[in-house]
Amino acid sequence: MKNTLRESYNKTAYKLGNHGKRNVQVLKEAFQQIDENVESDMYGQGQIIEDFQQKMANLFGKETAVFFPSGTMAQQIALRIWCDEKDLGKVAYHPLSHLEIHEQDGLKKLHKIETILLADETRVIELEDIRQMENGVACVLLELPQREIGGQLPSFETLEEISRYCKEHGIKLHLDGARLLEVLPYYQKTAAELCALFDSVYMSFYKGIGGIAGAILAGSKEFTSQSKVWKRRYGGDLISLYPYILSADYYYEKRAHKMAEYYESAQELAAFFNGCEGISTLPIVPVSNMFHVHFDLDKEAVETILTDIQEIMGIGISGYVKEIAENTSSFEISLGDAYQEVPIEAVRKMFGLLAEKISERRRGE
Amino acid sequence: MKNTLRESYNKTAYKLGNHGKRNVQVLKEAFQQIDENVESDMYGQGQIIEDFQQKMANLFGKETAVFFPSGTMAQQIALRIWCDEKDLGKVAYHPLSHLEIHEQDGLKKLHKIETILLADETRVIELEDIRQMENGVACVLLELPQREIGGQLPSFETLEEISRYCKEHGIKLHLDGARLLEVLPYYQKTAAELCALFDSVYMSFYKGIGGIAGAILAGSKEFTSQSKVWKRRYGGDLISLYPYILSADYYYEKRAHKMAEYYESAQELAAFFNGCEGISTLPIVPVSNMFHVHFDLDKEAVETILTDIQEIMGIGISGYVKEIAENTSSFEISLGDAYQEVPIEAVRKMFGLLAEKISERRRGE
Repeated sequence: MKNTLRESYNKTAYKLGNHGKRNVQVLKEAFQQIDENVESDMYGQGQIIEDFQQKMANLFGKETAVFFPSGTMAQQIALRIWCDEKDLGKVAYHPLSHLEIHEQDGLKKLHKIETILLADETRVIELEDIRQMENGVACVLLELPQREIGGQLPSFETLEEISRYCKEHGIKLHLDGARLLEVLPYYQKTAAELCALFDSVYMSFYKGIGGIAGAILAGSKEFTSQSKVWKRRYGGDLISLYPYILSADYYYEKRAHKMAEYYESAQELAAFFNGCEGISTLPIVPVSNMFHVHFDLDKEAVETILTDIQEIMGIGISGYVKEIAENTSSFEISLGDAYQEVPIEAVRKMFGLLAEKISERRRGE
Repeated sequence: MKNTLRESYNKTAYKLGNHGKRNVQVLKEAFQQIDENVESDMYGQGQIIEDFQQKMANLFGKETAVFFPSGTMAQQIALRIWCDEKDLGKVAYHPLSHLEIHEQDGLKKLHKIETILLADETRVIELEDIRQMENGVACVLLELPQREIGGQLPSFETLEEISRYCKEHGIKLHLDGARLLEVLPYYQKTAAELCALFDSVYMSFYKGIGGIAGAILAGSKEFTSQSKVWKRRYGGDLISLYPYILSADYYYEKRAHKMAEYYESAQELAAFFNGCEGISTLPIVPVSNMFHVHFDLDKEAVETILTDIQEIMGIGISGYVKEIAENTSSFEISLGDAYQEVPIEAVRKMFGLLAEKISERRRGE
């Protein structure tokens, strides 16, 4: 069934989420206008990488920035630097942080860094969670938006309070900003205004920006200079990172200014989902370009319904469904360029059909 | 002066070493014939990465292989796996191993693995070095060819003896085969025949093959399966590695069969250098596509001479010179596609001029 759902999703002409297929065309488009004589970066040096790092540092209002192959590598390194500075191998983050659930415990296995889990799996970290945590962490990591709970956000005032508290208590504050640009329309802040609250900042280039891969880590000159040493230690200081850098820059230019549009699309689409009985989104009103869609039905039932609708309507809703509990299942959706291409009348019709099928199923038909 | 030498090198129409410039054209050429609809690999899965891994496993005669962003990452992970298996954090390698001098002590900082240095900085590791080493290492790493001493090689019989000894003593043997294909013409062996002596094998895609970046790590299914977990921990399990994989495959097909040609070119070119008084190559007769060129003159003198000759002859000899000791300097050269393009008469004429200028300088003119 899983494969049938995935297949039906792949075959649809339109998609609700993302920017389109992750295929070689993504690379070809990015390199089409780039002169073949442009010289590769060389082990972290050269104009391609240095210019882009400076551009991102400027965007974040930080002194310097370093391009990394991945956010996993960049963030572990950021936390290690802050732990070394305080000579204290302990950090705090959300229980559903990427570092806790998606990295095979890299932070612990490679650095022996202990972690304190703040808040719980249902909500974002608040000032009170940090106030109440046991003494002595080198760094707190905040993920904005908190992806695994649908991309929720604390208020900007909370961020300011947390930032102030951490400064007063000698705790470094790191931003897991994988989706950093995606939260700016909600906060109505510039990247630099948001980043000013943090000592170090990471952003991904293949989420809202839709590049091929790669990440940036920004902070003070001393911080990034140490991060380059660790990047070498990790084997992340590749002879050539330009396939990722040049595509990151290309898609940054193409999409950075469209985050408000994606955010509005997310609100519109979430309203459609919430209009169907038995479906609700988390959060109800999205605060970025992403949200989770929850069903009061089991995984198999939702898979069948989505497969049917995708085949009938030619609109891709999701390629997977995840079981949450008995009679509860969900998937994640991130808005990008693809949504603008779907005729709005087709979207309405599709949600009509979805509501109908869900309701049939819930009545046990 | 350094910049003048580099500039004069960059401006030359011909080059003695390498495959040409490391610029965006390298990527464009590799992707020209690739269909834009080819799907990206996804976090280590998908046809692109799985097919190429199997192709490399077959080449090496190993069960499985894993594509990595870099050799630094692949090799640290290989050693860590062997250390964990033996529950013994100690390995042995050459004092000029890449892990010892080019990785900012990643192996030690990330894994707390101790190292025993075998042989000395002037020669390759022999069976006796391994026999005499203090008891208890989990793994011995052999680099073939030993790059930092001009790319020297032990005999194949020595490799067989070392392999047998390690097996008998429960020591894992890992091949740092960054330039693996480059040594096969000298040994007159297939990759699989060479790799059969080792428990795990790494090869690079941007040395003799001339790809953009990337590395392969091969071994048993259990070994590579563990290496994938570590790859995730390192942040090397990128969402998309296809820019490196597809270019690695393209340049592998383009150049893997040319290693004998590069090896012969290296022998021819080394003979030209050795024909000049005050210059000698290490090794005198190359055993792969690479060698070092040593001068009985100081760095500055050699820089001046090379800059002059490059400007006069339009043939790139080297973009840098390294000081070895007082009145001794050197550079490294690796033969590739570029050498075939230089008219042989121009090469002869260039060496005539080089011999003349060196001799003038040595006479103090």
